[in-house]
Amino acid sequence: MKELEFIRYISKKFKAGKPVVKGIGDDCAILDYTKTRYMLLTCDMIIEGTHFSGKATPFQIGWKAVAVNISDIAAMGGIPRYILVSAGIPRNKGAKFLKEIIKGIETISRRFNILLIGGDTNVSRETVINVTLIGEVEKKCVITRDGARRGDLIFVTGCLGEGRVKHLNFLPRLKEARILAKDFKLNSMIDLSDGLAMDLNRLTEAAKVGARVYKSLIPLSDASEPLDKAILAGEDFELLFTAPIGESKKLIKRMGRREDLPITLIGEIVDRRFGVQLIQEEGKIKPLKPKGFAHL
Amino acid sequence: MKELEFIRYISKKFKAGKPVVKGIGDDCAILDYTKTRYMLLTCDMIIEGTHFSGKATPFQIGWKAVAVNISDIAAMGGIPRYILVSAGIPRNKGAKFLKEIIKGIETISRRFNILLIGGDTNVSRETVINVTLIGEVEKKCVITRDGARRGDLIFVTGCLGEGRVKHLNFLPRLKEARILAKDFKLNSMIDLSDGLAMDLNRLTEAAKVGARVYKSLIPLSDASEPLDKAILAGEDFELLFTAPIGESKKLIKRMGRREDLPITLIGEIVDRRFGVQLIQEEGKIKPLKPKGFAHL
Repeated sequence: MKELEFIRYISKKFKAGKPVVKGIGDDCAILDYTKTRYMLLTCDMIIEGTHFSGKATPFQIGWKAVAVNISDIAAMGGIPRYILVSAGIPRNKGAKFLKEIIKGIETISRRFNILLIGGDTNVSRETVINVTLIGEVEKKCVITRDGARRGDLIFVTGCLGEGRVKHLNFLPRLKEARILAKDFKLNSMIDLSDGLAMDLNRLTEAAKVGARVYKSLIPLSDASEPLDKAILAGEDFELLFTAPIGESKKLIKRMGRREDLPITLIGEIVDRRFGVQLIQEEGKIKPLKPKGFAHL
Repeated sequence: MKELEFIRYISKKFKAGKPVVKGIGDDCAILDYTKTRYMLLTCDMIIEGTHFSGKATPFQIGWKAVAVNISDIAAMGGIPRYILVSAGIPRNKGAKFLKEIIKGIETISRRFNILLIGGDTNVSRETVINVTLIGEVEKKCVITRDGARRGDLIFVTGCLGEGRVKHLNFLPRLKEARILAKDFKLNSMIDLSDGLAMDLNRLTEAAKVGARVYKSLIPLSDASEPLDKAILAGEDFELLFTAPIGESKKLIKRMGRREDLPITLIGEIVDRRFGVQLIQEEGKIKPLKPKGFAHL
């Protein structure tokens, strides 16, 4: 079962109730919280062999386990607050390994002002860490993945295709997300965990729209994989977002004025019937299928 | 590192902040929520080979993953509300296996009125499920594990030593917990996940008291292991709680009058200097060490 199918299957079984503003299907669940704020909840499990190799240091494992969740909170425009951590550690790894994982968790948590409030440790055959992150967001600032509209421009933060190099040490785009959420009126946002091809399709599917992305506009760096791979490669943890034309102009202006918002315009939202298209340098149109980094 | 040491180590690193009423160290974390209610948060990971064997059905795995968490909410006197589920599934198990796990999760969630609001699926070598459960409790009803006082009587629900038989299908003691929380003023409560010996020591350590438990009073059934094993055996998921003498009398009266509160008096809280003692049939005193079902 592909993850998209799985989410559809499970969404049908568990309908959202009253205080559940949004259940399964976005980067975070949204609960009604205070008069002015929503609570955001997200969980991610990272597993040896799937999300990191045996060469990853325990510090990196701890760091990454929290970072991928912060990225989900960022994608909703929110602020991370509390984590619960479950760990499965092979018996032969010993206490020092676990302490180093905790140090990684502690370091990134301190940096982002997150409190660890619960945990569970177990013996397992392979190292596995699950982090559940609880955050919050001002109701007027929340950004979901399903709000894209025809005519929106599409942006990404940073450069794509760097996941392979930085996935164990990346800094989630929280600062940028908060600027975007507070100073602009975006229509939609998602974090790039499974590659542009996959995640842009998730965004357009959620809003029932199409998209046109220009190959020549996609930002790469020296650390990036070649473009054809970069759009399929997972674990960039950059933010992909859309804004109406007026806000987009404000975004582009702000981009030029200050360096704290490294974003790039890569395309536009179009009618659903066009699907998701990648426009080649010579103008040829290619469909951009939801392929890429599927976990299951 | 033993789990108790681990909890001490990690509690020092992450201090509770303002809205965190209770961080690490109890069955659930407690956050301030509404004027009259706390939010409860807990997570538990279950792993093939540690918490279930290859013979467990996927339905049972899903059921148990949620049940162990409901038991933690019950131990605080609370009501379960929302779950986030992360799963690692071996590639060769296929979609049917995952669907059966979901059916187990769905069945117990429906029974206890719980909504699934988030999830994450991954490929792993061994089956591993993490559930984070968010619940709530009236502020005046919350019961922590650290409130036991000298003179309290000690009770358990159900029978001990049945874990090996029922750990895959057990019904968490939520109904009983809510009766206890609403109709009585308990001083402390904990759920028996790692055996009476271990969990009674956790309860007394948290309150800096001692305890005396009478072997002849410990409730066993035909399905129970022999007594010496039953007090060490994990996964009973019964509730262990203490109440002052006046409330204890009320409890005993209620016990006799109605059948919906199957509880047994097993001992008393004493001064810390006595430690935790098991009183043999012939009156001999044996220390009850925190041994039993250690996950790490």
